[in-house]
Amino acid sequence: MSPCPDTLAPSEAAVSHGAAPCVIVDTGHERYDIRIGRGLLDDPASWSGLPRAAQAVIVTNTTIAPLWAARLHAALAGIYARVTTVELPDGEEHKDWPALNQIFDHLLRGGCDRKTVLFALGGGVVGDMAGFAAGCYMRGVPFVQVPTTLLAQVDSSVGGKTAINHALGKNMIGLFYQPARVICDLATLDTLPQRELVAGLAEVIKYGPIADAVFLGWIEEHLDALLARDAGALAHAVRRSCEIKAEVVGQDEREGGLRAILNFGHTFGHAIEAGMGYGAWLHGEAVGCGMRMATDLSARLGLVPAATVDRMHRLLERAGLPVRAPALGAARYLELMGRDKKAEAGQVRFVVLEALGRAVVRAAPDELIAGVVEDAARV
Amino acid sequence: MSPCPDTLAPSEAAVSHGAAPCVIVDTGHERYDIRIGRGLLDDPASWSGLPRAAQAVIVTNTTIAPLWAARLHAALAGIYARVTTVELPDGEEHKDWPALNQIFDHLLRGGCDRKTVLFALGGGVVGDMAGFAAGCYMRGVPFVQVPTTLLAQVDSSVGGKTAINHALGKNMIGLFYQPARVICDLATLDTLPQRELVAGLAEVIKYGPIADAVFLGWIEEHLDALLARDAGALAHAVRRSCEIKAEVVGQDEREGGLRAILNFGHTFGHAIEAGMGYGAWLHGEAVGCGMRMATDLSARLGLVPAATVDRMHRLLERAGLPVRAPALGAARYLELMGRDKKAEAGQVRFVVLEALGRAVVRAAPDELIAGVVEDAARV
Repeated sequence: MSPCPDTLAPSEAAVSHGAAPCVIVDTGHERYDIRIGRGLLDDPASWSGLPRAAQAVIVTNTTIAPLWAARLHAALAGIYARVTTVELPDGEEHKDWPALNQIFDHLLRGGCDRKTVLFALGGGVVGDMAGFAAGCYMRGVPFVQVPTTLLAQVDSSVGGKTAINHALGKNMIGLFYQPARVICDLATLDTLPQRELVAGLAEVIKYGPIADAVFLGWIEEHLDALLARDAGALAHAVRRSCEIKAEVVGQDEREGGLRAILNFGHTFGHAIEAGMGYGAWLHGEAVGCGMRMATDLSARLGLVPAATVDRMHRLLERAGLPVRAPALGAARYLELMGRDKKAEAGQVRFVVLEALGRAVVRAAPDELIAGVVEDAARV
Repeated sequence: MSPCPDTLAPSEAAVSHGAAPCVIVDTGHERYDIRIGRGLLDDPASWSGLPRAAQAVIVTNTTIAPLWAARLHAALAGIYARVTTVELPDGEEHKDWPALNQIFDHLLRGGCDRKTVLFALGGGVVGDMAGFAAGCYMRGVPFVQVPTTLLAQVDSSVGGKTAINHALGKNMIGLFYQPARVICDLATLDTLPQRELVAGLAEVIKYGPIADAVFLGWIEEHLDALLARDAGALAHAVRRSCEIKAEVVGQDEREGGLRAILNFGHTFGHAIEAGMGYGAWLHGEAVGCGMRMATDLSARLGLVPAATVDRMHRLLERAGLPVRAPALGAARYLELMGRDKKAEAGQVRFVVLEALGRAVVRAAPDELIAGVVEDAARV
C-alpha cells in the first residue's frame, strides 16, 4: 500500500505512517508527495504509481553514482524496460549549459521519447539540472527527485525551482517545474560529509525564523543530536522543513509574494557565493552567514531587537556555520545584489524578520546595507 | 479602445472589428489575443494593456532588424522606460544554444529584472528562441509575438511552442510557454521574399485538410490572389488559420491528443529537413512535400481515395511548393523519423487524413512508409 494515499484531503498536509511520513505539495495546478524515511530507495512502494514509460534515466553525479546509483537502478529495473544513468561532473561550477547538454545528449542518443521519466539522484545541483532538463526535453517529461543531501531534502528538491547558472548570475536560467514525487531516503545522509550536513542545517534553521518560532526552539534544543546525525532528530527536521516549504509553495508556486520568504538570507548569501567565486563557499554556508546579516538588517530597520540577532548568531555559530562575512566591501556587495532575481527596476529587496517566526520582503537604504556588510566582516 | 475586449466570452472565438480582426486563444490556464491587420506596429492600441515593466527587449535578427525594428522601438518607447534590441544571426542553423545565450547575455548585461517584457520580432526561428528565452529567464518573463513571416503569423507564433534545435534533432529542447499577445501586422509581409511567402502558404494550406474542407476550397480559389499578396486574401488566410490553430490549442495545449494534427506533413517534413541539413529546405517547403507524402500514406492506409492525393499534389504544386521528396532512401527516412517527438517507445506515429477536413494520428507499417518515400522521390 502506498504510504501516501491519493485520497488524502489537501488540509491533511502532513501525515505519518510509521516509517514513511509523507508531506503533500499542492500548487493548485499540480499535486505530489514527499516521502521521508530510512531505506525508501529499496522500498518498492516508493516507486509505484509513477508515470509509465519505456525508459527511466537516472541523472546523478560522479560522487553519488558509486554510492547510491546501483540501489536506485535495481529498484527501477523492475518497473521500466530500460534504465540508464548519466553521470554529471560534481560541483556548483558545473551547474551550466555544457553539463545540462550532457543530459540531452544522453536522452537523444538513447532514443528517449517524451514519456521517459528522469530521476534526479543527488544534491541540489543534480536536482536543479535534472529538473530543468526534464522541463525542456521535448517540451517536458516527468521527473522524480531523489535528494541525497540534507540541503536538497529540506529545500531544493521541493517546490519545483530548477535552474542552471549563467556567467553573469546564479540560477538565472531555469523553470518552475514540479517533480512527480520526492523520495527522501534518510539513509543517503549517512554518506554525506559533515561539512555538507552542516550546510544543509542552514536551510533547516531558516524555517524557524521565517515561519515557526516553536521549530526554532526545537532546533536549538536538538542541535547536538542533529549534528550527531541522530535518526529521529533528522527525520523530524526533514519532515517539519518539508511541511513548511510545502505550505508556502502551495500558496505561491511562482514567487509572486509569500514564497520569497524562503529566500531569507539568500540575497546576502548569493552575493557571498558570487563574490567568492561559486564553489568556494557551500550554498548553505553562504545562506547561514546571510541569515545573520538579514537578521541584523531587520534589527537596523527597527523590526526586531538586537537580542534576536544575537540568538541567530549563537545558533548558527553552534551549528558550525560561518557568521563572519567575507570583506568584499559594501560597494561590491551592493553591485552583486543588484543582479538578484528579487531585484525590480534596480531596487534590491530583502527578506527580513518582523519577529522570530514571521518574515516579509522589504527594500532597504544602501547605508543600512553597508552597515550590515561592514559589521558582518568584523564579527 | 482595445479591439479585443477582455470581457469577450470564450465561445466567441473570433470577432472582427474592421481593421483589426482578433482571435482569442484560451488554453484554460492562459488566455491571450491574436490581432491581425495592416499597420498594427504603429497603432498604440496594439501595445496597450500589456504587463508593465521598466524594460522591454526586442529580440529580432540581422535581416528583420533594419526593416522593422525601428518602428517597433518607436512604438514601445512610449510605454517602457528603456527599450533595447538584441539581433540574432538569421537562419534555422542558428536556432541553437549559442544564439539563445546571446539573449540571456543581453538581458543580464542590461540588468533586466523578472518583469522585463520580450518582443519577438521576426519569423518562426526568432519567435521560438525569444519564447524559450522568456520562459527560462529568471524562470519566466512575459513575451509578445510580433511575427513578420506568413509562416509565423499563421502557425509558429500561436500556441506557445518554443524550442531550440539540438545536434541530434530539431526542436528537441523547449517549452510550452504562451505569449501575452500576438500582433500580426500584415504590412510586415511586404518585405517577405516570395520563397518564404510560398513556404508560409504550406502551413495555411495545412489547415484545410486537417480541419476545414471549406477553407481548403477557398484556398484553391484564391491561391493566385494569395501568391500576388492581395491584402484581403492574406487577411482572411491569416485569420482563418489562426482561428483553427486557436481552437485546436485551446482544446489541447500540450499535445496530449488533438494538437498533434497540427503536425500534418511534419513527420516526413522534419525527416527531409534533417536529412538535407537544416536550412537547405525551408520548413514550409519540407512540410509542403511532407503533406503530399502524408496524404499518400492516408491513401495507402485505405483512409482516403487516390483522388485526394492528386488534389493535394496539384494545390501544392500550383502554390510553388516542392512535391518531389529528396531520394534519401527509405531506410534513412525511417531512421530520421524514429527520433520524431511524436514517436513513442520506438513506434513512429503519423498524422493522416480520414477525409479532407479530418485528421487522426496513426502508426503505419514500415513497408507502407517505404512505398510513400520511394514514390515521392519519383513524382
